[in-house]
Amino acid sequence: MNDSPYSISDAHRIEASQLDVPPRLLLGPGPSNAHPRVLQALSMRQVGHLDPAFIELMNEVQELLRYAWQTDNQLTIPVSGTGSAAMEASLANTVEPGDAVLIGVNGYFGNRLADMAGRYGADVRCINKPWGQVFDLDELRAAMIEHRPAVLALVHAETSTGARQPLEGVGDLCREFDCLLLIDTVTSLGGVPLLLDEWQVDVAYSGSQKCLSCPPGLAPLTLGPRAVKKLQNRKNKVANWYLDMTLVSKYWGSERTYHHTAPINMNYGFREALRLVAEEGLEARWARHQATAELFWDGLAEMGLSCHVERQYRLPSLTTVAIPEGVDGKAVAGRLLREYNIEIAAGLGELGGKVWRVGLMGFNSRRENVVVLLGALGEVLGRG
Amino acid sequence: MNDSPYSISDAHRIEASQLDVPPRLLLGPGPSNAHPRVLQALSMRQVGHLDPAFIELMNEVQELLRYAWQTDNQLTIPVSGTGSAAMEASLANTVEPGDAVLIGVNGYFGNRLADMAGRYGADVRCINKPWGQVFDLDELRAAMIEHRPAVLALVHAETSTGARQPLEGVGDLCREFDCLLLIDTVTSLGGVPLLLDEWQVDVAYSGSQKCLSCPPGLAPLTLGPRAVKKLQNRKNKVANWYLDMTLVSKYWGSERTYHHTAPINMNYGFREALRLVAEEGLEARWARHQATAELFWDGLAEMGLSCHVERQYRLPSLTTVAIPEGVDGKAVAGRLLREYNIEIAAGLGELGGKVWRVGLMGFNSRRENVVVLLGALGEVLGRG
Repeated sequence: MNDSPYSISDAHRIEASQLDVPPRLLLGPGPSNAHPRVLQALSMRQVGHLDPAFIELMNEVQELLRYAWQTDNQLTIPVSGTGSAAMEASLANTVEPGDAVLIGVNGYFGNRLADMAGRYGADVRCINKPWGQVFDLDELRAAMIEHRPAVLALVHAETSTGARQPLEGVGDLCREFDCLLLIDTVTSLGGVPLLLDEWQVDVAYSGSQKCLSCPPGLAPLTLGPRAVKKLQNRKNKVANWYLDMTLVSKYWGSERTYHHTAPINMNYGFREALRLVAEEGLEARWARHQATAELFWDGLAEMGLSCHVERQYRLPSLTTVAIPEGVDGKAVAGRLLREYNIEIAAGLGELGGKVWRVGLMGFNSRRENVVVLLGALGEVLGRG
Repeated sequence: MNDSPYSISDAHRIEASQLDVPPRLLLGPGPSNAHPRVLQALSMRQVGHLDPAFIELMNEVQELLRYAWQTDNQLTIPVSGTGSAAMEASLANTVEPGDAVLIGVNGYFGNRLADMAGRYGADVRCINKPWGQVFDLDELRAAMIEHRPAVLALVHAETSTGARQPLEGVGDLCREFDCLLLIDTVTSLGGVPLLLDEWQVDVAYSGSQKCLSCPPGLAPLTLGPRAVKKLQNRKNKVANWYLDMTLVSKYWGSERTYHHTAPINMNYGFREALRLVAEEGLEARWARHQATAELFWDGLAEMGLSCHVERQYRLPSLTTVAIPEGVDGKAVAGRLLREYNIEIAAGLGELGGKVWRVGLMGFNSRRENVVVLLGALGEVLGRG
């Protein structure tokens, strides 16, 4: 090779072994384990992103996503990124510089919404609650009167706290104040009752890797007619090219104009995940998540452990378990991972050191997973 | 189910069949067919995005990416999106509002860079060339004197034209003018000679789905020390949360602070793709791409077809073939797809209707693919 015109360095040419990873049971806040059929779909050979076969698949993905979210919204697509990309897209497209955006902050992801909204020039107003609590309709009304926002952003399923924000009546409130309702459904879509159109939600986003049991890499986004109208009447270009729905919707809409290259194989997997939702049916799926969670909560109670969130606001998909006095929560999670291959997560922010976060999502929402987790936790805590 | 508290609509609950797609040979501008080992890696079971096993994998991906790009840059990562996301990240992080950004526009992706840079408040200056031609050092110097940019952006491998922009000497020029050099290597990384550090490139991005033969869904990005310094000294927050490298680099750096959930399985596939690059070696890989392309060019000449780009600036990974007078280029591409399962692409923009775009990238850069394409093209054109 001495006749090469190039001087190539082998400094970073490491010898990496064949891919292998431990057989983890992912019972943290996500990703959850993908369904085996989803993993299988991922490895299907590729077609091009403008191939007639792929365009048909895009239509199916959009229809199945509308079913999962219970919406007729035309603009319903998987964003080519992870959940945070769809979160950012939801704001980038509906917020214009100077818009007042009211954000309910009762956990980590409310803060993230505030950070993102600020980067798009929003006049950010936050209402706060201790992590694990939710906002009631009177509190929201009072805040609407005070702030008169263009957008109200709430987290339906707070992955950092395990709290479910009730949304009944909030859509009416937003219409009364001529305000868009934007909600985070990252940890609810496909596992927790969610009726976008009935609740008059204007904008919602989610992730593929929670209750849908697809690996991370796609992020559902939907915009209803009021949000689309605002998007179409913007004074300024969306300040984010990759997530600009005026462009992206031309690829996912009838024009099929090239914007970016869609993640082909991730869409294969995502279609399979949504197909599983349609096969099972939303009602059965929601009931399964609830039943599995209740089994877990009962088991915790029997072990003398308590949940951080009041029962009526508790998410079936994500439970925050109070760490008992004197127990090193991080050490327990570490032992579960190393000795039992079970992943659960530590608390974030206000709940750091105070709770474990346990996800029973999608494919992982099964009785046997509750049994193994409670058994392992009992052994580690000496409460078996 | 009549006792359900929810009224669930089945309007969008379509019955989708088991996933199946035609066995396409993807010889367009990308995606190329993924290597079978990459497809296999995609379907490996998941671990969490903060699992020690995944963190080790992240280190390997970064090292192997440094090898492929021939750079020591610490900040070398796959962005969790497709090529356009990394393109946007390259600008979002290095451009501050008001910065003059000089862009060489000699194809579709130069225009895209200009559109994106404008959204981040850049004072965009373009130099233009007919599509398929490249800029010489004197032209670049004259433009630098005129515009005094903070960033010079060039497309190393123009996917829309098949032209390779020479970069020898451009790094010195940028240092002389205290300007960052940003280059698009979407269609060159892993297939075309590319020596980032030797050429003193400050910022580069690419895609997973071209010469690396991984499905689309990840997008390599690298920032050298001068770019990182500018990033650290920014007056304003990066106006894009998802692509903010001050945050993302804390996840990919030693802190491993959670930012967003990395696309686990896509990273499995990407690691395998980069492992294949390291196994083959860059020199052999570049030589293979060149040899396969030359075989194709010779075959085209024998059929009386000509290439749009002058030989010395022709990319081995992407060839623009001039559509002969009187031939309906779109109809030919349609027949290749329907009758032979071969995808090639039409021209874009200035080259719309004038050329076909043929990619021989990564795993697809093989003699047998040249044989089948030339044979099928000959049959369709009646020149067999």
